[in-house]
Amino acid sequence: MPAPGVLAATLVRPGEYEIREYPLPEPGPGCVLVRMEMSGICGTDKHTFQGFTTQYGGRKLEFPIIQGHENVGTVAAIGGDGRFADFEGEALFVGDRVVVGANVACGRCYYCTHDFPYYCCEKTTDYGNNLSAAHPPFLFGGWSQYIYVVPGSFLVKVPDELPSEIAVLTEIFAVTVGLDRAKAMSAFPSESFRFDDAVVVLGVGPLGMCFLMKARMLGAGTIIAVDKSEYRLNFAKRLGADFALNAGTTSAGERLQMIKDLTHGRGADLVIECAGVPEAVPEGLELLRIGGLLVEAGNFSDLGEVSFSPHRLICAKNARILGVGGEEPAAYGPGMRQMARYMKQYPLREFVSHRYGLRDVDAAMRKSMEADSMKVVLEPWQ
Amino acid sequence: MPAPGVLAATLVRPGEYEIREYPLPEPGPGCVLVRMEMSGICGTDKHTFQGFTTQYGGRKLEFPIIQGHENVGTVAAIGGDGRFADFEGEALFVGDRVVVGANVACGRCYYCTHDFPYYCCEKTTDYGNNLSAAHPPFLFGGWSQYIYVVPGSFLVKVPDELPSEIAVLTEIFAVTVGLDRAKAMSAFPSESFRFDDAVVVLGVGPLGMCFLMKARMLGAGTIIAVDKSEYRLNFAKRLGADFALNAGTTSAGERLQMIKDLTHGRGADLVIECAGVPEAVPEGLELLRIGGLLVEAGNFSDLGEVSFSPHRLICAKNARILGVGGEEPAAYGPGMRQMARYMKQYPLREFVSHRYGLRDVDAAMRKSMEADSMKVVLEPWQ
Amino acid sequence: MPAPGVLAATLVRPGEYEIREYPLPEPGPGCVLVRMEMSGICGTDKHTFQGFTTQYGGRKLEFPIIQGHENVGTVAAIGGDGRFADFEGEALFVGDRVVVGANVACGRCYYCTHDFPYYCCEKTTDYGNNLSAAHPPFLFGGWSQYIYVVPGSFLVKVPDELPSEIAVLTEIFAVTVGLDRAKAMSAFPSESFRFDDAVVVLGVGPLGMCFLMKARMLGAGTIIAVDKSEYRLNFAKRLGADFALNAGTTSAGERLQMIKDLTHGRGADLVIECAGVPEAVPEGLELLRIGGLLVEAGNFSDLGEVSFSPHRLICAKNARILGVGGEEPAAYGPGMRQMARYMKQYPLREFVSHRYGLRDVDAAMRKSMEADSMKVVLEPWQ
Amino acid sequence: MPAPGVLAATLVRPGEYEIREYPLPEPGPGCVLVRMEMSGICGTDKHTFQGFTTQYGGRKLEFPIIQGHENVGTVAAIGGDGRFADFEGEALFVGDRVVVGANVACGRCYYCTHDFPYYCCEKTTDYGNNLSAAHPPFLFGGWSQYIYVVPGSFLVKVPDELPSEIAVLTEIFAVTVGLDRAKAMSAFPSESFRFDDAVVVLGVGPLGMCFLMKARMLGAGTIIAVDKSEYRLNFAKRLGADFALNAGTTSAGERLQMIKDLTHGRGADLVIECAGVPEAVPEGLELLRIGGLLVEAGNFSDLGEVSFSPHRLICAKNARILGVGGEEPAAYGPGMRQMARYMKQYPLREFVSHRYGLRDVDAAMRKSMEADSMKVVLEPWQ
Repeated sequence: MPAPGVLAATLVRPGEYEIREYPLPEPGPGCVLVRMEMSGICGTDKHTFQGFTTQYGGRKLEFPIIQGHENVGTVAAIGGDGRFADFEGEALFVGDRVVVGANVACGRCYYCTHDFPYYCCEKTTDYGNNLSAAHPPFLFGGWSQYIYVVPGSFLVKVPDELPSEIAVLTEIFAVTVGLDRAKAMSAFPSESFRFDDAVVVLGVGPLGMCFLMKARMLGAGTIIAVDKSEYRLNFAKRLGADFALNAGTTSAGERLQMIKDLTHGRGADLVIECAGVPEAVPEGLELLRIGGLLVEAGNFSDLGEVSFSPHRLICAKNARILGVGGEEPAAYGPGMRQMARYMKQYPLREFVSHRYGLRDVDAAMRKSMEADSMKVVLEPWQ
Repeated sequence: MPAPGVLAATLVRPGEYEIREYPLPEPGPGCVLVRMEMSGICGTDKHTFQGFTTQYGGRKLEFPIIQGHENVGTVAAIGGDGRFADFEGEALFVGDRVVVGANVACGRCYYCTHDFPYYCCEKTTDYGNNLSAAHPPFLFGGWSQYIYVVPGSFLVKVPDELPSEIAVLTEIFAVTVGLDRAKAMSAFPSESFRFDDAVVVLGVGPLGMCFLMKARMLGAGTIIAVDKSEYRLNFAKRLGADFALNAGTTSAGERLQMIKDLTHGRGADLVIECAGVPEAVPEGLELLRIGGLLVEAGNFSDLGEVSFSPHRLICAKNARILGVGGEEPAAYGPGMRQMARYMKQYPLREFVSHRYGLRDVDAAMRKSMEADSMKVVLEPWQ
Repeated sequence: MPAPGVLAATLVRPGEYEIREYPLPEPGPGCVLVRMEMSGICGTDKHTFQGFTTQYGGRKLEFPIIQGHENVGTVAAIGGDGRFADFEGEALFVGDRVVVGANVACGRCYYCTHDFPYYCCEKTTDYGNNLSAAHPPFLFGGWSQYIYVVPGSFLVKVPDELPSEIAVLTEIFAVTVGLDRAKAMSAFPSESFRFDDAVVVLGVGPLGMCFLMKARMLGAGTIIAVDKSEYRLNFAKRLGADFALNAGTTSAGERLQMIKDLTHGRGADLVIECAGVPEAVPEGLELLRIGGLLVEAGNFSDLGEVSFSPHRLICAKNARILGVGGEEPAAYGPGMRQMARYMKQYPLREFVSHRYGLRDVDAAMRKSMEADSMKVVLEPWQ
Repeated sequence: MPAPGVLAATLVRPGEYEIREYPLPEPGPGCVLVRMEMSGICGTDKHTFQGFTTQYGGRKLEFPIIQGHENVGTVAAIGGDGRFADFEGEALFVGDRVVVGANVACGRCYYCTHDFPYYCCEKTTDYGNNLSAAHPPFLFGGWSQYIYVVPGSFLVKVPDELPSEIAVLTEIFAVTVGLDRAKAMSAFPSESFRFDDAVVVLGVGPLGMCFLMKARMLGAGTIIAVDKSEYRLNFAKRLGADFALNAGTTSAGERLQMIKDLTHGRGADLVIECAGVPEAVPEGLELLRIGGLLVEAGNFSDLGEVSFSPHRLICAKNARILGVGGEEPAAYGPGMRQMARYMKQYPLREFVSHRYGLRDVDAAMRKSMEADSMKVVLEPWQ
């Protein structure tokens, strides 16, 4: 039986963490208590820390918050009759290693009942984000020794061969379902994300890097990574990029020319925007060939407006934009199995670049915002 | 045999027409001479007249130009061996009534050989637009007594039951293939243009009106027309719209509220942008429900930039944008047959609101820009 | 308050009905009691009556059964806290007229959690079919004065303007989501169910007739109905078919020739198989053009095997087959609203051709199998 | 300058080859003469040799035939003005190594003008197959020292890094566009060929092996190869299969059980039929999970009929079938580039298992039909 006091890094307001102690809860019916092993720092966590607290086009966050929605741990206790099936139907037992689904869809709104991706739920609640630590049982984020899993959540068992430092990428990797959608998003073959297409990834932080790997797994041709960090660009090449462009030392015009040179003068077939700044959207459209597709996944927090020409960048190009605001439960298991396959050829185990204990949460957050880090994680029991 | 001199309204520079006389050409091999019956004035024609002469994201027009690419006429002479099959494979003969395909794709560029829609051709040439009257045989537009059809063009025979004042809509109606693409543009059912979807059409000039009719034909639910012209809004209701909103007497906020009220508070499933001004793009995105689709078909000429929030209008909404820069040859025949069906229930014959002879081209152009007109046509032999 | 004894036509074994009396149940939490107004006889009901009791590729039915899954009635009582939202989110009250969703998906199997259509549920239970009257509260079918709605079911409110004799078609009409899927089922535009496509419907009993109407609503071109009943063929023409072929007086070869004659020698773009006999599948494939699509919706019960040539009918034709085993909840509301629109132009109110009281269930069943009937319904209170 | 007499293995009737000498032709305008380096033996070649000479659902072959449509060689002479662009737009010169497109679409039939895959052309002519050696300039197949390329054909330049023994696979690999279509063939995510899907390949001869590789490249999960040849099964595992089932030593029932065991009891998500016998079609459907997809690519020649249950294998399963009758020009270049990538990790250079000179054509044909061969090629100058 674990100790009665549970420690958790708690964001009491933007910019300020406290290590607080919470009572260890008993899981109720349909609930699960998970002992945390590792939890990632996500771009959203950084935005919240910085004070960009408006999400989903208008919802505000309620503090304090125990952050952390990229969570790996082991089942500590199962509430009710002690039975809980993982998302793929397998029975879970105490001690099983699991990834915790990041969001809980309501299951009742129009979007939930009408075959929408689950992140379209109007009332989605998110671990480590809009589930506030103001209300018991408090432990709704992964930067804590335990996380409390509420009814309607999903857990996915981690394959034995997958190390936890890769399993912790599962949630962010699942956001790449945007590319699966892009495969199907076609009336003309030319509108699909096609086999051997030239792909540009704008921003190869953790999310962009996952999209880069997914593009490779789905049959991309030339992949070009763009970022300001040489560290990240080098890692992108080791994870499957063919070319890397430093956005810190080139102008937008130079980048356009370089990408045209790599694509027979046409521009990229597919651009994936993961830089997360508004300006990256018109630049991404500029880089597209006629009829190309921009996957917009980066602007998850509101960083303002940007100006663009609908004629030149959309209509005259027959361009398409696909907004991707989240991941899908059905993508967790496939993602873990495919990363287990991928790690045999690529240095995926180095994706987690830095690890910190709970008490070093400030240092962890700072490091995650520096150019020489990739995925930074917290290990609540270290 | 027709008279030796062919009269054509010729745009010598933006804003200035001259009626010029040209020699009657003999069609060469693979060419056809068509005696014009009726030719529409399109939004692009108006923009060129006004001096917005940049198209396709950067190409400039060469003057003088005989405008007119929405063309109905009869086959006057066939070059070479006298044989020419229409686009659907039927042999054409002198006297047959035909619609002339508006564009000629090169057939050799990357886009032409790689299964792209034909309007993606890098070197497309357009009747009445970028085929200049500076070069013989000059007659490359429909505001002329004859039009000269070059090799690589396509003609589509008009069904006997379809009056010419409806056949003249064929080209613009064919642009609505954007909606067929929207039907297929889905990985999730929720991403398609679905059966019974609530559709907003921004701008119900001739192009928007065609999209409105096509939406109805493809199973739309509630259709809401938005325009500044009461004349056009009234006609939209007679052609299939359920509701009409006057953009001249309402604010953007009022329109958003009205559309939310008509859609259970969710917003439109599909917005079709045919207003043709940059500002309509962010307004269209604003009107969408989560996961909705904006078909951008209006900004065919370059009218400048507009500012928008990638977070709020794309990423947080999981919105999608589909740029539609033109029509497809394969859409001409189906469009004519379906308009023949539609005209049994809707007053489609009133779509052409005004007719002018060649010498009244200035009056015709003015009328086409007034709020109390729908499709204005020239009848070169009147 | 209704009388304590509830009468229901009960199929005690294939071929034998008894009118039995059941206790009136109190609805439990999450349950609803619906007072029946009208319930259709479906092809599945006929097959069960005839002894074809194997469904879903192997599952057997448990007798006795109160049949009836095409149900319209009014809310009589709501269990638990008295609150129940309809499928589109609207609160229901006693007295509201509703359609009862025909199936209950388990919500937990692989298919339910992985974005499959709900009829793919491995453990689906069906009102009037595999929910047996052997177990309390017994009233699981619509050929009864009351139907008992269990948790996990869905109800959809009927629009005021829609008469019950059309609302009773909602479930069967919802099976036509197969055509919506066909719209999206394309990598090439040629693979979609395209605008103006030539459509053949094999078998225009109630299901085929709904597909015929849906094809028209989604922009079909020429529609050709094939059936052995002149009565049904005549009605098909009144509901939107352009041509009708009597399969009783023509050979397969003659039908092939007639359909080629109507399609420029190419064959049908789309064939919808609703005849429900194995032989209709190879005939349907034969009628297709190159690259055509067969929607297979008719063989819901197991009537045996049939022989065909994979080379000639699939591979050499690049043909596609789409099996459609059921309907979707999200199709009920849109279907009702679109039928309300359609009935303004087509004699949809005549679709229900015969009405019977409960005690005439044998006559009703016999009539439903005769060539001069369309939808036959039971009215349990008549 | 090459010698005046050109040697070619000529199939004078089924089962009988002669080495004949033909005059060396001068290429006419739009034509190219290619000096052959290597030409594969395809399943169709074997069927023709065995006397199955009916293709495309009814067309007969005209003898004599110089077989060979999987062709790699170098440009020897270009007709007309000496200019010829490869399919991707690059200018070709004498000495360039190229793959010769296997088919010539007419460009004028309904299918060619209406956005169909090129193999849907009604009048397609095929090198090494239905282009007979009865007519000058005779050299229409690759089992010859030179092949004569007619107008309307396409050539694709071979990347320098790709050895000819892999480039010779380009045509057959291009048939796997069926899988790209499967990616897009979805209204529901569950209908697509999904990321991490379990894939069964029935028959891992050269075509099946290409599909297996393509499935891996597009993100398949577990891949299971089924064949009667241990030699081929072993090679399948080296090229990316996870499991191999010997169809010669197991019953259909045992295979079904084994595949269910590997797929959580559900069956395969995707089955690719490349065994080429009618019986493989119902077995493939049997192996599918609910809502699964069968890609039917094997029955290119007519080997007769087979019996199946439309209820159990199509309707009750919501199964889908996609007939794939050929390859696409746009797939050649991407295929070559991706095979160049793949060969870095997989022993793709061993795919060509046997090489023969022209005079050993009988031995080559025999070997291609034996279980211990993979792709067998002819080298006309050896």
